[in-house]
Amino acid sequence: MSIETTTINVKDQAVKAQQSGKILSLLLTSEKNDALNVIADTLEQEYKFILEENKKDLETGKEKGFNEAFMDRLRLTQERVNDFANGLRDVAKLDDPIGDILSEWTLENGLHVKKVRVPLGVIGMIYEARPNVTVDATGLALKSGNAIILKGGSSALISNRAIVSVIHRALEKTKIPKEAVQFIATTDRSATEQLFTLKEHIDVLIPRGGASLIQTVVNNATVPVLETGVGNVHIYIDKEADVEKALNIMVNAKTDRPAVCNALETLIVQRDWLQTNKEALISKFHEHSITVHGDEEILEIIPGAVKAEEKDWTEEYLCLELAVKVVNNVEEAIAHIEQYGTKHSEAIITENQTTAQQFLKAVDAAAVYHNASTRFTDGGALGFGAEIGISTQKLHARGPMGLSALTTTKYCITGNGQVR
Amino acid sequence: MSIETTTINVKDQAVKAQQSGKILSLLLTSEKNDALNVIADTLEQEYKFILEENKKDLETGKEKGFNEAFMDRLRLTQERVNDFANGLRDVAKLDDPIGDILSEWTLENGLHVKKVRVPLGVIGMIYEARPNVTVDATGLALKSGNAIILKGGSSALISNRAIVSVIHRALEKTKIPKEAVQFIATTDRSATEQLFTLKEHIDVLIPRGGASLIQTVVNNATVPVLETGVGNVHIYIDKEADVEKALNIMVNAKTDRPAVCNALETLIVQRDWLQTNKEALISKFHEHSITVHGDEEILEIIPGAVKAEEKDWTEEYLCLELAVKVVNNVEEAIAHIEQYGTKHSEAIITENQTTAQQFLKAVDAAAVYHNASTRFTDGGALGFGAEIGISTQKLHARGPMGLSALTTTKYCITGNGQVR
Repeated sequence: MSIETTTINVKDQAVKAQQSGKILSLLLTSEKNDALNVIADTLEQEYKFILEENKKDLETGKEKGFNEAFMDRLRLTQERVNDFANGLRDVAKLDDPIGDILSEWTLENGLHVKKVRVPLGVIGMIYEARPNVTVDATGLALKSGNAIILKGGSSALISNRAIVSVIHRALEKTKIPKEAVQFIATTDRSATEQLFTLKEHIDVLIPRGGASLIQTVVNNATVPVLETGVGNVHIYIDKEADVEKALNIMVNAKTDRPAVCNALETLIVQRDWLQTNKEALISKFHEHSITVHGDEEILEIIPGAVKAEEKDWTEEYLCLELAVKVVNNVEEAIAHIEQYGTKHSEAIITENQTTAQQFLKAVDAAAVYHNASTRFTDGGALGFGAEIGISTQKLHARGPMGLSALTTTKYCITGNGQVR
Repeated sequence: MSIETTTINVKDQAVKAQQSGKILSLLLTSEKNDALNVIADTLEQEYKFILEENKKDLETGKEKGFNEAFMDRLRLTQERVNDFANGLRDVAKLDDPIGDILSEWTLENGLHVKKVRVPLGVIGMIYEARPNVTVDATGLALKSGNAIILKGGSSALISNRAIVSVIHRALEKTKIPKEAVQFIATTDRSATEQLFTLKEHIDVLIPRGGASLIQTVVNNATVPVLETGVGNVHIYIDKEADVEKALNIMVNAKTDRPAVCNALETLIVQRDWLQTNKEALISKFHEHSITVHGDEEILEIIPGAVKAEEKDWTEEYLCLELAVKVVNNVEEAIAHIEQYGTKHSEAIITENQTTAQQFLKAVDAAAVYHNASTRFTDGGALGFGAEIGISTQKLHARGPMGLSALTTTKYCITGNGQVR
């Protein structure tokens, strides 16, 4: 029987996730860690099965003529499976947020109030054809005491199904019910749409992938969404910027991994600084094959620059293209970011502490930098150990989301008969 | 010109709120407190104008035959206006959460990371015909550095407009731009619907009122929502419950203010305890005119009890009606709450610490009580000083929401040229 014709009842799966989540939420940290380590070992032991199944997706991908970047993300190797396993072992080592007492106090009437961290319950993960998300998201969900429903991209369906079947076999040897990991084994889009409204059974949806996937979820889901993703990132080189720092940071933020959300998209340069340092800047653009887009002024200064249109200021390039904007001062830089930024990561390069403080205070974004690359907006780089995504929303979690973003709180209040 | 024919451009108002919010977000605590005190004084000075305008709403309400409870909530007096003013003075005295450093650390590469509390930006408040919300919500929003858009119920339109016009006159004497408080002066429902999708300009919507108002916002808004409201509250009287505590708490939770969300709706009683104490319990029901709904077993035990239907377990009565369910043990009580609870407030009455801990751990709700009345789920009662509502959702804020629920965070990261 092919996958497509299997009858999928998404609601049933969500109910099973919710029921298993109740059991999972009460497990000890050591029981959850043991389970993650068992999954890690089992993935390594069964890597051949996973690679064989992955081959089927790769063959279909080849037939469909997917590009090499896409095929590379889809392709699994023994080394990559080992990386998945080590990722799970790392998550097992992280502190367990569940049960943490965030605050506690006693009221005058003698009531004792404790604010305790508890799991969210059920996480719905909607993602594109990246089998690594299947393992990463499962590890973070289980460690934080949450059940998870996985809906990955169609092109990785057979690989994801194989990975989840290995996870299920592993969980049978642990205290975590295997139903706590639910996989939606269909390419049918209506299955994803069913997830959008299962408010009674799913506590949060996390879409990970391109802007259109995320917007579809945000616009259609009544289940609360943790929005991740789009970063139209700016770096402002101030009049008083150190030349070496400015050039290094610009090159790093633009070229280290141009396709990620914390990569530089628009460089804002103070006019005097540009006049003084234009040759050094142009030579960096040239050296790193960066194509510049700008207005008439930029076209005159930078050889080979392309005339910028409105979309150059609003959209992510995610490749070695860069919009460059000239301003007179930090206020104009802040105004440009306010108009075009996506509140992800923004930076100022300056030796003037007052200007830096003004920028840090006025710019509204998840991460605001002074004299550092925007590439640090990342759970690993900031020391969170692992991340489920980078939130670009303001509610619940902002910026890189570690385990605690997958939790909520409850007040436990004890008394001896108090009434109002 | 009547209010209804005034052209309302909700988006323009949201843009103005957003722009003023930027200025407001950078003000000092003392500047915000001064403004709240000026509003308080001005409301007291102009109480006659407010009462005159309120009379117009009351007359229309009378013509439309609104019930007395509704008219009472709508009716303003000099004393009530003074209460509004004192409420604002209390908010001025609360600690300002803005600028709080929630955590900070230095990475091995020397980058210094600070997680700082900042305002959300613009709050959209959608509420029913309660003029007090106009003042309370404005005070909490401004203190936490947020602009606010107010859309109150049509029946209080003239009263609310009068209050906001006084607030605007007061703000002209302060550092807070008066555009930071926007009032949608129309009874046209399409104005409310426009708020639902202004994601670029409004950071959060807070609906306050009945279940249908809240569900309309939750189901239709793409702007993130802070869901407040429905509490189908249970109290479980365990086999080992102290009789006096159990009866006092039941009476308080049911009768103190039956129409509020933390009032008791279903009493779950352990069978042996009920057998032993049925006469004392029945006499309390009688004394406080509480009508009991239950199954056949209850009908036999409690004189005058009404046969319960499914809706008796699922819905709030919000009056002196009470569903009563008999169970054998705490596990059955937990299962009933899991099936019918709305995750608001739940309580256990027992002298057995182990049973109490089992209940506190297993029950998934914003507030879980041991030997205390559920009526304490309230910002004031828990010591938060003031509340914008009681969140029944798990993301961002759960339970009574004080000033910090109106904030988000940003990472301020300072370096000396670090790159990845």
